Amino acid sequence: MSLLVVGSVAFDSVETPFGHRPEVLGGSATYFSTAASLFGPVRLVAVVGDDFPEQHVAFLAERGVDVSGLSRRPGRTFRWKGRYDFDLNNAHTLETHLNVFAEFDPVLPEAYRDSKFVFLANIDPDLQRSVLDQVKSPRLVACDTMNFWITSKRESLLKTLKRVDLLFVNDAEARQLAGEHNIVQAARRILTLGPRALVVKRGEYGALFFSGDQVFAASAYPLSALFDPTGAGDSFAGGFMGYLARTGKVDAGVMRRAIVLGGVVASFTVEQFSLDRLRTLTSAEIQARYAEFQQLSRFDDLELDLFAPGR
Amino acid sequence: MSLLVVGSVAFDSVETPFGHRPEVLGGSATYFSTAASLFGPVRLVAVVGDDFPEQHVAFLAERGVDVSGLSRRPGRTFRWKGRYDFDLNNAHTLETHLNVFAEFDPVLPEAYRDSKFVFLANIDPDLQRSVLDQVKSPRLVACDTMNFWITSKRESLLKTLKRVDLLFVNDAEARQLAGEHNIVQAARRILTLGPRALVVKRGEYGALFFSGDQVFAASAYPLSALFDPTGAGDSFAGGFMGYLARTGKVDAGVMRRAIVLGGVVASFTVEQFSLDRLRTLTSAEIQARYAEFQQLSRFDDLELDLFAPGR
Repeated sequence: MSLLVVGSVAFDSVETPFGHRPEVLGGSATYFSTAASLFGPVRLVAVVGDDFPEQHVAFLAERGVDVSGLSRRPGRTFRWKGRYDFDLNNAHTLETHLNVFAEFDPVLPEAYRDSKFVFLANIDPDLQRSVLDQVKSPRLVACDTMNFWITSKRESLLKTLKRVDLLFVNDAEARQLAGEHNIVQAARRILTLGPRALVVKRGEYGALFFSGDQVFAASAYPLSALFDPTGAGDSFAGGFMGYLARTGKVDAGVMRRAIVLGGVVASFTVEQFSLDRLRTLTSAEIQARYAEFQQLSRFDDLELDLFAPGR
Repeated sequence: MSLLVVGSVAFDSVETPFGHRPEVLGGSATYFSTAASLFGPVRLVAVVGDDFPEQHVAFLAERGVDVSGLSRRPGRTFRWKGRYDFDLNNAHTLETHLNVFAEFDPVLPEAYRDSKFVFLANIDPDLQRSVLDQVKSPRLVACDTMNFWITSKRESLLKTLKRVDLLFVNDAEARQLAGEHNIVQAARRILTLGPRALVVKRGEYGALFFSGDQVFAASAYPLSALFDPTGAGDSFAGGFMGYLARTGKVDAGVMRRAIVLGGVVASFTVEQFSLDRLRTLTSAEIQARYAEFQQLSRFDDLELDLFAPGR
């Protein structure tokens, strides 16, 4: 089924303890659509400046990303500069230049309006709702957000959440949104705000999925080489949503496999800078790591007669 | 098979955002043996002062803990005072009074020397080796340690590690011991120091197990109520080792089930203060949570024909 993403396309300048890459391709919608395109076509809505090279557009188009919703405006493309320390879990933003992204007003091409699976990447919640106003009858709407919107546009974000089926956040964002430290309690509270399902991303520790009384806990694939965490969250969402759109189903079993697949795709993303690893990633590599992940998280039933007498 | 623990028996005074408990029963060997006694008998070596109430000794003995190795010395019992903030992952030590524990010189009763499973709780690595000198032919030796010994008695700790089969540490300790931030790389380095297996405890995020090329990743049971993390690590080790000693096996499948069981027992420990939850914990409750844990970490094989053409 059709899959739509609305978000940013950007140039990132990234410093990690393992190297430095200036002005590489980045942005939430870029990571998402590159990841999701492993599973099938993706419709992209984003804005770039007149400095954005045609080769990047061609890269996306060749992967089956519909770029008819990628608009080009006079000015410079969104730029982000960040640094990660040895603890690669936290990005330190050094510079943010929104440039043409400051005036982003997502308009869906007519052909996009029947999209069945929709991912609203981390943008202003007002814009997220304006996208939803343009989609006719989506099967599943997912969104991402961040601490900035949770604090500065909370009311707008709450309005968006009422129209969303699935929310992706990290644990700090979940706690902040719910005003509750315990992650299970925080999840329960968030599920009263609109979304009927919640994915809590926990970086190197995996992810939790909550829906109704259902909980799924996925460990992360333990990586021996992690170079650049940029885009991990959007790759996760891209793998997750790409798989959902591919199967066209949203049952509990599909959701669980989607979370593991999202984690697998993200685990590849962070092995190299920018989108470099996703560019070469194959279905065979994904399947192999998925199987490895099954192997490393498998455990059997307990034996009988295990306990001390009287326990 | 027989199981021996050598460690501390103490009084803890604990403050958490959920309450305050002065002078409650605590100590690594207490938590370990109480947890392990769910599965079978445990031999305890520890020291207490003349202020230690007989009722606590009786409590352990009634659970099947052999207390003939618990010596009583003139003076006060080891006391620890600590505080946890809303982030319950880190204990802030307010006071430590070693008292009679400062002169702890573990001497094994003759009847303990044939112990097959041995757990060296977090004590001076010199003492850990002196215990091993007294055990005839153990089947499996496990030990715990902490940042204090890693920095202040590193050479002694390295000598101990050469005689240990299995090391339990948390992620910060693993990183510190290995001098390596990446946890997979850190684990590989630690496995060159002596232990043939390593359990990395990650608190609310679960645990990782490394042995040779084998990796097992267990999520933690997501708890909606966590009151007091004191003793979680020793309860984990107690559940783990109690189960191993019960089965008498150390194969890969048993190790995995032991890790999940250790996590299950620890998840109960932290639901109440001190050993309160362990006192009432039953085998039926453990089995139910183990089954729940299987349910919440289960996911199926991927469907075929999942990927976009050409991937």
